[in-house]
Formats: sequence, C-alpha cells, structure tokens
Amino acid sequence: MSEKKNQKEKLWGGRFKGEAASILERIGESISFDRKLYKEDLEGSRAHAKMLHKIGILSREELQKILNGLNTIESEIDSGEFVFRSELEDIHMHVEARLTELEGEVGKKLHTGRSRNDQVAQDVRLYIRNRILEVLDRLDSLRESLYLQAERNIDTIIPGYTHLQVAQPVRASHFLLAYFWMFTRDRDFFQFAASTNDELVLGSGAMAGVNYSNDREFLASELGVPRISPNSMDAVSGRDHLLQFLFAGTQCMIHASRLCEDLILYSSQEFGLVRLPDGLTTGSSIMPQKKNPDIAELIRGKAARTIGNLNHMAVLLKGLPLTYNRDLQEDKLALFDCVETLLISLEGLEEMIRELEFRPSRGERSLKEGFATATDLADFLVGEKGVPFRTAHELVGRLVSECGEKGETLFTISEQARSAISPFFTGKEYDRAVSLELSADKKNSFGGTAKARQIEQLKIASESLKTSSRTKE
Amino acid sequence: MSEKKNQKEKLWGGRFKGEAASILERIGESISFDRKLYKEDLEGSRAHAKMLHKIGILSREELQKILNGLNTIESEIDSGEFVFRSELEDIHMHVEARLTELEGEVGKKLHTGRSRNDQVAQDVRLYIRNRILEVLDRLDSLRESLYLQAERNIDTIIPGYTHLQVAQPVRASHFLLAYFWMFTRDRDFFQFAASTNDELVLGSGAMAGVNYSNDREFLASELGVPRISPNSMDAVSGRDHLLQFLFAGTQCMIHASRLCEDLILYSSQEFGLVRLPDGLTTGSSIMPQKKNPDIAELIRGKAARTIGNLNHMAVLLKGLPLTYNRDLQEDKLALFDCVETLLISLEGLEEMIRELEFRPSRGERSLKEGFATATDLADFLVGEKGVPFRTAHELVGRLVSECGEKGETLFTISEQARSAISPFFTGKEYDRAVSLELSADKKNSFGGTAKARQIEQLKIASESLKTSSRTKE
Amino acid sequence: MSEKKNQKEKLWGGRFKGEAASILERIGESISFDRKLYKEDLEGSRAHAKMLHKIGILSREELQKILNGLNTIESEIDSGEFVFRSELEDIHMHVEARLTELEGEVGKKLHTGRSRNDQVAQDVRLYIRNRILEVLDRLDSLRESLYLQAERNIDTIIPGYTHLQVAQPVRASHFLLAYFWMFTRDRDFFQFAASTNDELVLGSGAMAGVNYSNDREFLASELGVPRISPNSMDAVSGRDHLLQFLFAGTQCMIHASRLCEDLILYSSQEFGLVRLPDGLTTGSSIMPQKKNPDIAELIRGKAARTIGNLNHMAVLLKGLPLTYNRDLQEDKLALFDCVETLLISLEGLEEMIRELEFRPSRGERSLKEGFATATDLADFLVGEKGVPFRTAHELVGRLVSECGEKGETLFTISEQARSAISPFFTGKEYDRAVSLELSADKKNSFGGTAKARQIEQLKIASESLKTSSRTKE
Amino acid sequence: MSEKKNQKEKLWGGRFKGEAASILERIGESISFDRKLYKEDLEGSRAHAKMLHKIGILSREELQKILNGLNTIESEIDSGEFVFRSELEDIHMHVEARLTELEGEVGKKLHTGRSRNDQVAQDVRLYIRNRILEVLDRLDSLRESLYLQAERNIDTIIPGYTHLQVAQPVRASHFLLAYFWMFTRDRDFFQFAASTNDELVLGSGAMAGVNYSNDREFLASELGVPRISPNSMDAVSGRDHLLQFLFAGTQCMIHASRLCEDLILYSSQEFGLVRLPDGLTTGSSIMPQKKNPDIAELIRGKAARTIGNLNHMAVLLKGLPLTYNRDLQEDKLALFDCVETLLISLEGLEEMIRELEFRPSRGERSLKEGFATATDLADFLVGEKGVPFRTAHELVGRLVSECGEKGETLFTISEQARSAISPFFTGKEYDRAVSLELSADKKNSFGGTAKARQIEQLKIASESLKTSSRTKE
Repeated sequence: MSEKKNQKEKLWGGRFKGEAASILERIGESISFDRKLYKEDLEGSRAHAKMLHKIGILSREELQKILNGLNTIESEIDSGEFVFRSELEDIHMHVEARLTELEGEVGKKLHTGRSRNDQVAQDVRLYIRNRILEVLDRLDSLRESLYLQAERNIDTIIPGYTHLQVAQPVRASHFLLAYFWMFTRDRDFFQFAASTNDELVLGSGAMAGVNYSNDREFLASELGVPRISPNSMDAVSGRDHLLQFLFAGTQCMIHASRLCEDLILYSSQEFGLVRLPDGLTTGSSIMPQKKNPDIAELIRGKAARTIGNLNHMAVLLKGLPLTYNRDLQEDKLALFDCVETLLISLEGLEEMIRELEFRPSRGERSLKEGFATATDLADFLVGEKGVPFRTAHELVGRLVSECGEKGETLFTISEQARSAISPFFTGKEYDRAVSLELSADKKNSFGGTAKARQIEQLKIASESLKTSSRTKE
Repeated sequence: MSEKKNQKEKLWGGRFKGEAASILERIGESISFDRKLYKEDLEGSRAHAKMLHKIGILSREELQKILNGLNTIESEIDSGEFVFRSELEDIHMHVEARLTELEGEVGKKLHTGRSRNDQVAQDVRLYIRNRILEVLDRLDSLRESLYLQAERNIDTIIPGYTHLQVAQPVRASHFLLAYFWMFTRDRDFFQFAASTNDELVLGSGAMAGVNYSNDREFLASELGVPRISPNSMDAVSGRDHLLQFLFAGTQCMIHASRLCEDLILYSSQEFGLVRLPDGLTTGSSIMPQKKNPDIAELIRGKAARTIGNLNHMAVLLKGLPLTYNRDLQEDKLALFDCVETLLISLEGLEEMIRELEFRPSRGERSLKEGFATATDLADFLVGEKGVPFRTAHELVGRLVSECGEKGETLFTISEQARSAISPFFTGKEYDRAVSLELSADKKNSFGGTAKARQIEQLKIASESLKTSSRTKE
Repeated sequence: MSEKKNQKEKLWGGRFKGEAASILERIGESISFDRKLYKEDLEGSRAHAKMLHKIGILSREELQKILNGLNTIESEIDSGEFVFRSELEDIHMHVEARLTELEGEVGKKLHTGRSRNDQVAQDVRLYIRNRILEVLDRLDSLRESLYLQAERNIDTIIPGYTHLQVAQPVRASHFLLAYFWMFTRDRDFFQFAASTNDELVLGSGAMAGVNYSNDREFLASELGVPRISPNSMDAVSGRDHLLQFLFAGTQCMIHASRLCEDLILYSSQEFGLVRLPDGLTTGSSIMPQKKNPDIAELIRGKAARTIGNLNHMAVLLKGLPLTYNRDLQEDKLALFDCVETLLISLEGLEEMIRELEFRPSRGERSLKEGFATATDLADFLVGEKGVPFRTAHELVGRLVSECGEKGETLFTISEQARSAISPFFTGKEYDRAVSLELSADKKNSFGGTAKARQIEQLKIASESLKTSSRTKE
Repeated sequence: MSEKKNQKEKLWGGRFKGEAASILERIGESISFDRKLYKEDLEGSRAHAKMLHKIGILSREELQKILNGLNTIESEIDSGEFVFRSELEDIHMHVEARLTELEGEVGKKLHTGRSRNDQVAQDVRLYIRNRILEVLDRLDSLRESLYLQAERNIDTIIPGYTHLQVAQPVRASHFLLAYFWMFTRDRDFFQFAASTNDELVLGSGAMAGVNYSNDREFLASELGVPRISPNSMDAVSGRDHLLQFLFAGTQCMIHASRLCEDLILYSSQEFGLVRLPDGLTTGSSIMPQKKNPDIAELIRGKAARTIGNLNHMAVLLKGLPLTYNRDLQEDKLALFDCVETLLISLEGLEEMIRELEFRPSRGERSLKEGFATATDLADFLVGEKGVPFRTAHELVGRLVSECGEKGETLFTISEQARSAISPFFTGKEYDRAVSLELSADKKNSFGGTAKARQIEQLKIASESLKTSSRTKE
C-alpha cells in the first residue's frame, strides 16, 4: 500500500512511460533523515519568497499567503502533527506539497527561480551555521570547566607521562590547560569552517544560474550571509563547507578522545590519579573500586565514528565529476551524525571535567616510586656543587640502585645510607633537590609547569575565555 | 519526565550514592539501535533457558514459563505493541524487564550463568549469520541477472576500455561476466566471514568464564553453531567476525561501485552504450535523452559510506586493551548500516542489470571512430602477408592518417584510397582484417573474448550458479 | 656489520644492562625518512645556539664554533657527502654526533635547554611552513592557468552536466572558473593551517618546560614565528598543525581528483570535449584517438593516497594519552608523502590546463543531441507567447518526440514539421528560442553562465590573483 | 641530463608529435618502488618464455638465450650492479631493455602474447604469494612464543580488566592465549587471501585476451598456481587479492595494536604487571623505573598506518571503470608498506613476548585493592550458606565498606571485624571464598580461566601449532 506510487507528486515523472519502480523510491528517499533540515528549509523559503516579491514575481498577497503557509507548516512540524509520507522523497517536496494543499496554486510559484540543487545546498549551509554556534557554546563551557579545574588544582602535583612512563612532576593545572588550548584551537577551526560555509548559494539554479533576475544581495542580507557565490556550478556541487565541518569535528573528537584516554587511565585503580563521581560511572554493587568510566569510553569510541564519517565524505567526493550527482544525497548522513556526536561528547566531557576530583596522594606515590626527581638531584650536584656531569650521574645512579634494592624511594631512604654515597645527599639541600614541587617550579621558561608560569597561563586562558564570550554577543 | 531515572531498573546501580546523571543515560543508551537484535536475543535466550534446565538450574515449569514469556515478547515486538523505554538502556534489559513483568521472579533466573558481555556478543553473531544468508541470496540473484544478460549479449560487440579510451572490441557478455566473477568472489568472502562468525561465545560470562557448569555443547547444538570459543577473554572482546563482515561488504560495494560507474558512463548520452528503463531513472519531462541514473549514483555513493563504516570499526578496535570496553557498544552501528546498504544496493543493481538494454550501434560507432582494429590490420599484414612489422605499422599509420584527414573510418574510406596505400588493403581480406567481430574472436586464449571462449565461460558461470544454489538447500 | 650497535652513541643507553636488541634499532630508526628535515633542524639549532649565547650559556667563541659546524654539516648534506649511519637513529643525533666530531665537546652543549621532543616538534613546524609556501605558489600558478584558459574560452559553449547527463549549455569559462574558486578555497585553507602551524614550541623541553631561563621571545623572532606556545605539554604532544596540513591537502586533492575526472571524461573519445597534448598523454602508435590521460589518472589515484595519509594520521592520534608517545614518530611519513603528492599533482594539473584545447563542435553535438534547450523553448512559449505552462510543455514534448522518431534535433528538423505542431515554432524567434548561446545568456543572475556574468567573474578572479601575488611579496 | 627523454625506449611513444613532457615521466615512473618485484617479474618471464617455446613461437635456442639473459639480470640485480634509469619507467621495461642489450632482438620476442597489464598483475600475485608465506612463518613464531609464555604462566594470577577496571582474577595463560587465538584467526585469514590470490592471470593480454594460443595450463603449472582466471577483463583490472591482503593485514595489526596497548599499560609503573627486558626498551640512565616500551608504541602506531594503507586502496578502487586505469599503478605502495609493517611488527611482538616477565605481586596487589573477589564471597553466602541473595550482597557490601574506611582489604581485615558483620566470614571457609586462585578455578565452563580449562586450552593450542607446522611442509 505504502509502496503505491503517486506519479503526480513526482516533479520529474511527467513524461515517463513506466511507473517509477519501487526500488528507486526506497533507495532514493531522503526524508527519513533530511527532515532535520526543516527549520532551515523554511528559513530559506521565506527569504526566497520575499525576494520574488521584491523582483515582482509574487504579489503582496501571494507573498503573504506563502509566508502564512510556511508558518503553519513550521508549527505543524514543531508540534509533531505534520505527516511525512515516503512517496514525497525529501523535505523540500514535503514542504511544497503541503504549501500547495494549504494555500493553493501559489504554493508552486515559490519554486520560481530556484532548483532543488541550490535549495538544498543553501539549507545545509544554514544548518551548519546554526550547529557551529551550538558547538562553539559547548566548547566554551568545556573550556571554562577546564579552566576552573586548573585554577583549583594549581597546587596538585601529578606525574607527567611520556611513553606512559612517569617522567616529571607537573602541576595538574598544566595538564588540564593543555586540553584547554586544544579545544581553543578547535574553536578557531570551527570559526574558519564557518567563514567558508557562510555563503549565499541560492540563485545558482540547477547549476548554470537562473533565468530570472534574482536579487541575490537581498537574499544574502535576508539570510544574514556575508558573501555571494561567484560561480553557480561550484555552488551546487561544492561540499567544502561540509568537509571542513567534519575536519574541525575530527580534530575536536581527537582531542576529546585523548582526554578520555587520560581520564580512563587516571581513574583506573592502578593509576588512581582522579576520581569520577558515581553519577558519571557505572559499576558493581559490591566492588566499590570498580567505577567504569563509560562516558569516557563511549566518547573515545565516538571519535572513531567521526573519523569514519569524515572518511565517508572524502571518499564520496573524490573523483566526482561536475556538477550535481546523486551520490551527494547522503552527505547529510555524515554531517548529522558528526553534529550529534560532537554535541553529546562535549557535554559529557564537560560534566566529567566539572565533577572530577584529583587524588594527590596517588600522584605523589607514582612520582616517588618512579624516582621522578633523580634527574633534578643530578642537576643539583652539577649546578650547585660543581660535580662533573658524569660523576653526578654515577652518584645518583648508585643512590637509586640502593633504593631499589631496599625497596625505598629517594624520600624514605635514610640519611645515613645517602651520605654513605655522597656527602651532598644530606640535609635540607637534599630535600629541596628531590622535592616534587620544586622540581616543577624549576620548569620556569614561558609555557612551563612552574607555579608562576601557571598563574600566567591561567591569566591568558581567562583572557581567551572572555574574548570568546565577547565575540558571541 | 522520560528523563526520570528509575534506579531499580539499573543492573549496576545498586550501591551508588548519586543518581545516574542524565548525560550517562543519554550517551549510553543503545536501545535506539540495538532493538534490531531482538529476534536473535530471544533465540539466544531460549537456548540458554533450555540449557539451564538441562543442567538443573531451571525446573521444567520455570523453563516453560520463560519460554512462554519470550514468545509473548516476540509477538509483542513483531506486532509493534511492545513499549521501548529509554531508561532501559538496551534490548537485553527490555527483554529481561518485560519477562519479569509477565512471568514474575523466574524472569531474573534467566540471567544465571551468563553476562551481558557474552549475551550481546552471541546476539551479534547470530544476527550476522542471518544477514549473511540474505546477502548470499541477493548476490546469487544478481549473478543470475548478469549471467542472463551475458547470455543474451554474446553477440553484442562493445568497446573495451583502458584509461577510459576505446581499446579493443569485446563482447558485451565478457564485460558482464567480469562482474559475475567479482560477485562470485564476494560470495566466497562472505562464506569465509561466516566461518569465522559462527562460533558459540555464550558461556564466556563477563570475561573469565562462568561459575556454573554451563553445557556449551548443548548450546552450540541448539543454536546450530559448529564451534565453541576456547577462550572467554577473546570471546567477549574479539570483533573479527564483525570486521570481516565489513571487509566482505567493502569488497562487494567496491565491485558494485565499479559496475555503477560503468553504467553511469555507458548510459550517458555521449557513450550511449546502454539504456536504463524509465522506471529506474529520473529525468526531465522534455529532455528525453536525460535519464539520470540515480540508482547507480546512489549505490556508488553508498560504497563511500561502507568504506567509512569499515574505517569506523577498524579505528574503534585499534589499540583497545582487553577485554570489554564500552567503546564497543557502537560497533553495531557500522554493522547495521553496512547490512542495509548491501541489501538495497544489491537489489538495485540486480534490477538495473535485468532491465538493461544494449545499443549495439553506439558501440560500433565508438569502435569505428576509435580505429579499434588498426592493430588487427597491422597484424594481418605481418601475419598473413609477410610484411615486416615496422613497414606494416607505417602503412596502417598512413591509412589511419588519411582517414583522419577525410573524416572517414577504416570502414568508410574508399577502396581506391586504401589501395593507393597498399595493395593488401582491398577486398574481403581487408574487410575481415578490420572486422570488429573477428577481432574479438582472435582473442582466443582461455579467458579471452572470442565467441568460443564466451560460450565456455558461460558454461563455467552456469556451473557456479548451480553449485551456489545447491549449497543453500 | 651495520647491525653492530654502538652503545656510546645512544643518548638513552647509559645504564642499561643488555645491549639494545637489533629489532629495537631497526623498528625505531627514522633517519631513512626524517633526513628530509635537515635544513629545518639546522635552522632551529642555529637559533637555539644564538639564544643560548644570549642567556649566557654559550660564550661567543662557543657559539661561533657551533655555527661553523652547523654550516659545514649543511654543506656536507647539500653536496651528498654526509654519511648517514643507521645506528644514529634520527637526523637530530646525526647532526649532534657530526657537530661533536667537527667541533669537539662544545657540540654537546647545544642540547642544553632543549629535548628531542621539542626539537623535532619545531623542526616539523618549520618544515610545514616552508612547504606551505611552495604549495601556495603552485596553487597560484594553477589558478592562473585556469584563469587564462577561462579568458580564452568565454565563447566556447559546452554541455553542463548533472548526473553525467547533458543538462544545460554553459560557457567553458564557467566550468574552468568553478575549479578556480575551489583552488582559491584551498589557498585559504593552507593559510589557515599556516596560522595554526607557525608557533614556537622550542623551549618546551621533554614536556614540562626546561630548567633554563630560555628566551623564547628571542627564539620566536630568530625563527620568524609570530606566536609562542603557552603550554609545554600541549606543545610536545599536539599534532594539529600536521593534521590541518593533511586536511587542507585532502581538500585540495579532492578538487584535483574532480578536475581530473572531468578531464578524463572530456578527453574520452565519446565525450571529445577537450584535447590533451601528446606530450601529456600516452597512447598507441596506430590508434591516434587513443590518447591515455595518464597524468589525470595518476592524480586521481594520488587523491586516494592523500585520503589514506590523512586517515593514517587521525587514527594514530585518536586516543593517545599525553604527552609524547613513540607512535608519533611516523607522523612524518604521512606528511612527507602528502607534500610530495600535492606538489607534483598541482604541477601536473597546471600543465594539462595550460595546454588543453576545447573542441567546440563536440560540445555542440552533445547539446543538440541532448535537446538541451527544449526547456528554453517551452519558456519562450510561456514567457513570450502567453501559452499556458502545461500546453507549452506538451507542444515541446511533441516536437522533441517527432525529432526523436526522425533522427533529427531541434536544429535540423524542418520548419514545416515544426509549424505543423505550433505556429510559434518558426522563424528567427524559434532559432533564438533554441539557441545554445542565448540559453547560456539567459542565466543572468550573479554567478550565472551568461556572458556578462562571465566577464564580471573573470574580473573578480583576476582581482583574487592579484591579491594573492601581492600577499607574497 | 637524466631529464633527457629517450623516445625510442618508450613502448607507446612511436607516433607522437611532441616529446613526452618531463612531468609525465616524473609523475608516471614506478621504478622507484616496483623494482621490489624483480624476482617475481623474472619468475613470470621465465615461465612465459618456456610457454612460448612450447607453442612454437620461440625456438629452443631463442628460449635458451632468453633464460640465460634473465639469469644474468637476476644476478646483476641481486648483486646491486644493475643500473636503474628513471627514463625506463618500470621494472618490466628495465628487464626488457637489458635483455635486449644482452641477447639482442630475441629479447623483444619475449613480449609476444602478453601485455604489461597482465604481466604486472601476475607479478604482484606471485609477490603476494611469497610474502604470505613469510607472514605465516612470523605468525607461527609469535603464536609459539605466546604458547610458551602461557605454559610458563599458568599459575600466575593477574587482574582481568573490563573498562580498564579490575574485574576478576584470571590466569596469565588465559590472557596470553586470548592473543594466541587472535593470531590464529589471522593465519586463517591470510590463507583465505592466498586462495583468492593464487590465480594465473598471465595470458589476459591488455584486457581482451591475446591473439596467440597461449597454453595457460602450462603457465599455471610452471608457476605453481592452482587456478586460471576465466575472464581477461576481470583479470587485468581486479585487485581483490591485494585488498584481501590488506584486510588480513589490518585485522592482524589491530590484534597487534591491542596486545601492544596491554603491554604498554602492564609495563607502566602504575600497573607494573609485566617487565620488558632492557634490550627492548629505551629509558633514562637514572630513572630505572622508566623503561619506555618503544617497540610496543611503534607497532601501535604502525597499526594506524596499515589502516591508512587499506583505506588508500579501497578509495583508489571505488568507482573505477573497467578495465585498467593508471590510478592502479600505486596500488603497490600500499601493499609494500603493509608487508614491511607486518613483518617487522610481528618480529617485534615475538621478541617482546618471548622475553616478557610477569610480576605476580603487582597483580595480586591490584586484585586485593580492587576487592576482586567480593562477588565470590557473596556467591559463597548464597550458594553454600543459603543466605538470600539480597542479604548476601548487603553483608558483603558492609564488609567492603568497612575495609575501605580502615584502609584494609578482604585479606587484611581482622577476623574479629569480619565476624562482627557475619559469623560466616571466618576461618578457612572465608579464606577460600575470597581466594584469588580459587576464584579463577570457579570459572570452570569450557573456555574459562580455571586451571583445568587452561591445561585443556593449552592442549588445543598445541595441536593448532602442530597442524600449522605440518601444513607448511
């Protein structure tokens, strides 16, 4: 029954002999996903109708009827009462058909001076514009949560890792701000993508332009778009704006996946550096330690999907001749999935970051067991005691060996044992030389983990947040 | 309201202090897609219940109640009256909750000796098994349609292309059978994937095995699975079966995309080698030539999506530690999408192939305008007239040049003009030397395009079809 | 022999008991590819040495010796006399070892206040900066060649395609400029990537910063880099700059692949719209038509490789914990391959575009056989003769049908036959209504294919070229 | 100078007017990588020459000259004295040119009845056949090393992880054998790929077959190939064998990357479950704990490259029309890189596995701190003491809470404190209930981690190794 084709509804079916085969309808429909564009489709149609009025194609009454019809349709879709029918293959035909039902023949005039090719191209651009604004908001919230945690944890010393091995003590603020800057770069990337995206393509027709003297300046200003496409063939077949959204989304999800990996590691029982709240983990009722970081795992997994979506889109476009080819229809699937993934992932990250607690004792344990300040001790011998480099390393090597044999650390081994190796391994000087916090503070070049540099970095980050929030107003 | 968490429903929520946060539910739910597994989930649960009865954990009455309940649930889902609730995050919890509603406490006993990890792993394997059967059927129909068209077009001569340039005359049957063999290899690949897939993993528990003496032989025989996984950690974390399905699907969609590219080219106005029926194209009411091969374009585009899905899955798995990680939850998205894409694409291809018509005159025109048998003419001089190779090429070169200048082909240039270049360029001998059909017939080695070889190849193809259909019985 | 390990050369080998296993050397070496960075490594080292002098760590004499040594090394590598040894695993160790050979112990002091992690990170950034400049040059040459061809072909009418079916007449200039704008967007993208890339990361140490008061402002100014990284952990582990280069490269190669696809199609015997010069094709000595567009095919294939490289890099980064992990070593493989691919592909494209010839007669044939102006004829009836839309379409439909049956086109069918269908189908009016050129000129909205719009578009393109060339000075 | 084109050397250059442009040579050459095929190219040529002799095209003397020449060429390339020249674009032309130099005109006769298209297709198939044999050997060595470690560590108890959280005690043998089975599946996959690959395609000519009565049965038997391609168009344009090699390689590298991830985690200071030997790690001279698992990181990174290569190849093939297109030239780049990556990665893994040491005390610590047997204790109450499920969980929950507050584990908390919660929490019964080893032994279903099951699994693995080694003889 639903299989029955209604030839009259088909824009292109007029003179065909056979009935459109059922497989063509089923494989060709896009209404199951492109209905997401309805707001943008209506927005574009309103602007187009006003333009048609301006250039004398629609009378004032006709314009009014069309605007009324479009408003009615919007309410119907908003409220869920609009009926989607698979034989009207896409959102554009649904709107046109309903408009004609509501307002009569004038509904068909709305399609004057445009084609489905430029219409859908514009819809997607408006959609991307709107979604980028949401993504920027989410990025800013996440950056704020990283900033606040960093501020809170400027005095928390944790191990910095290279090769997943304990390397040097760093301030937790430093670790958190590393991600702050990554997400700031994502912000910049999305803004660049927006600058590519925000272009008027309506008025390009099927691909060669339109036979009407469309006022594209007026359309651009109605839609709030700063630039008009100079070439109609490029306008209907280009998908760089979509690709760039996926590029920015991929970079962002890679950052997200790295942060998630760190959270998964750090909240493992063995690392134990952070604690995620119960509300953001799952677990076992009688294994209290087992707090599964599901959100972080899911986001890490979603990064894979985003990379898959980007790949989908790049492969789709590669080698396509000009201009419009039907392959392009499914570009929206990759886009929609990426949007959804980004928004929920950024939300998940933000909640985890906001509610995260560091467990300083565990970081200390790792650093001490890892002899993370042995190098600092050697530097102390060289720099302050004038011991030759090679000798210094030998002495520290012996001390570390002794610790290893006795199951001690540089902090627990007795002064006696130390002084047997070197007279410099004693007193406050020694304590300072191996201090985790002071080690961090020695990294005092710009961008380093020293406290003064952290304070400075927080200030820069705070400025960046303020700038972001200002540009949104 | 639907946001409200019902803690009692959460298997893992028992002892948690905070309420599970809404983001955890929203990012973690899979019921929106894994409901596709309900048949397989019920199939697995029936077998598990029978096994629990066999090893004495369920009484006959308990087993009966559970089986009744599962049957009821199946009817409810089949008929669409089953209520899915987002707070019951996946299909397994839906079934369990409903079973307990229907049959009381015994419903909870069904989960004895299994875990969600091995349960879902088994469900997906059963799902893949069932879908491979459908794909094989579709492949066989497509291969049959290629075979039938080849049989019909053994005497249709078309250009064979290299570098998209007219190269040599081939029989259309040869072109069609090239694809026959590709899809035959896909068949083999899916069968290999099935051999990896068809394994019993139920009884692996969360990852270390189960505390009960589960009779896994019995389960395997109930589910019709020929092999039992020897390692529970591998069983719950391995996804090779899924990956191999995507591999086979990718190879298949690459073949499909190549066939579609050829159909798009050959049905272009310029090539004009084939005609697609109106029912499988879209077009313009007053440009009768313009028959857009939408189905072929969509399938070509869908190949990109399949490659994207494969990539998604490979990236997801890369570097995951053992055993189960929540990232794996979305493996099903890539799988489901690939299944759907494959089935509709193979159907679309089959319809196009079945209804395709060749236009021999256009092939002939291309071959003649392309001087496709100039090489044959030179071979004739060398082989039959003893003309030295270099001279032969020179003479043919001059003839071709003259044709070019006069706008003629080897077939239209006057005998007079020909004999002015060489006395051998005359009479029936000349006609035979440049004949398109005879050129094809000279390619007489096994696998060549000569008619005798085509008949032979059709016979082999026919045998292959018979074998495929026999193995299905 | 070359397998023999020279433990003393290993920076990290000091205290290890076993000898480094041969597999570690073989799997870990990067000198086979990272030698490409030698110019940038030397550039970075020079700046670092000057900075060390400025902050008092190197004396004037020491600085001089180091600069002399680095200059010698550069000449040695330039001239090919430098000896690379696989046991010195990377370019940095080669330079350091040779410097020490040449200048003695002072060579080792060069490594003060930096680590291999920040050193290689900076090298790659300098390398990308230099390569982007080359890519921009190539893009500008290509854009210029497109512009010049467009200028030359403003009066060449070719078919515009949708779904690879003849759709509407367009000017060849319009087609060419479509690509002009794509490559202009690539230009913008590479400049954005440059803005991300051009950052000073030297001075970040292994990951936490350095123990010296490195003057990073000085370094930035020496290296001509406008920004200093604010976070050392991010600085050594971030690869966004590399990823963005690959993103821009992928977008660019997608454009290239689409242009190549069009060139392959248009230079096929069947389309015949363009002719590539012999010097840019391969072929058969006696099939003059067969001019294989190898360069275009190779570039289309190379686009696949670029997508593969991008994927490689995204997968590599996904889920990596902070900070440096050895996985990152091979990031350069994807980068180098992309650089090489881009440069040669853009060069190949440019040559093809420059030497391309359009064959207007073939475009005309396709357009006429495709009834490409049937719609224009209907528009004429509606717009100028007041015929109702439905009737107009019916009349044109009948005319086209009659043409089809008689093997005629709208241009060859007799006036008598035409006037039998409609009295309006006669005289100059009819000729104008179906004219290919006038059809193009009706697409007169901004960005359309009308001649006036082409002149305008060429002017905008010319401005864009001038701006690009000005920004380079 | 090397840029100078030698037109006579070009097979296709005969009649062209312009000189082949330098860009064509530079972008088109493949000798820089396809020289790797020389052994297989010579092997194919020898078989082809013998076949030409058999069907009467080469005399005995001619055959002998050709075979001598081919042998000379092999020695020259083996010894490094063969001169490669960039103007002879590929390995096939190098061999042909040198053969003619060495043996005169007869060298050109070798090309009778074959084309570069079928020649290179066969070369690659022979190459893949040979490389698969090497990969299988490597896989078997790796599987053996896993087996031996498993045998050694049947009594080593380590944590089994889900979500990277300590879940249940497992035997280290179980963990190791999980990977054994993965690599066994890779073995199967490569064998399947071999079965697709091992086909005779020589004799397919440029794409339509050849004009000679080539004895392809003879060729197949000479080359030891079990099957002859039935369709020449498919034979020259199909790349499924290459794709399947990459598929198998990707699956294998995914397994490798997961094992590496586990090794990286387990050898981190925090997990500490395993110790890698010094010879396979890099480190710091005075931070003895810091043993960077570079090999594991590099292999994990190389998995990304393999995924990139697979993607490259899939994208290259998608949408290519029949038959040969020049895009295909670079298929070998993905293949060669995958081969190299696989071989060195499997070697690296094997060495790490062979020299690995488990540190049982660290596993015990994690399991105890993670209350990994709390569930077993609850099961004990339910199963052996008849305590209702809910009550049992409550009691264990209280005990675990108390431990948490006091900083104790189930193993260290006093009997007094325990018995205050439940009288069953005492004596040997309690000790047995929480025993890590006994917990493992309760997982006694087939495929579980119980000792008896491990012994059984080792036996199956041992059989599998024996079968593999037998099939190689």
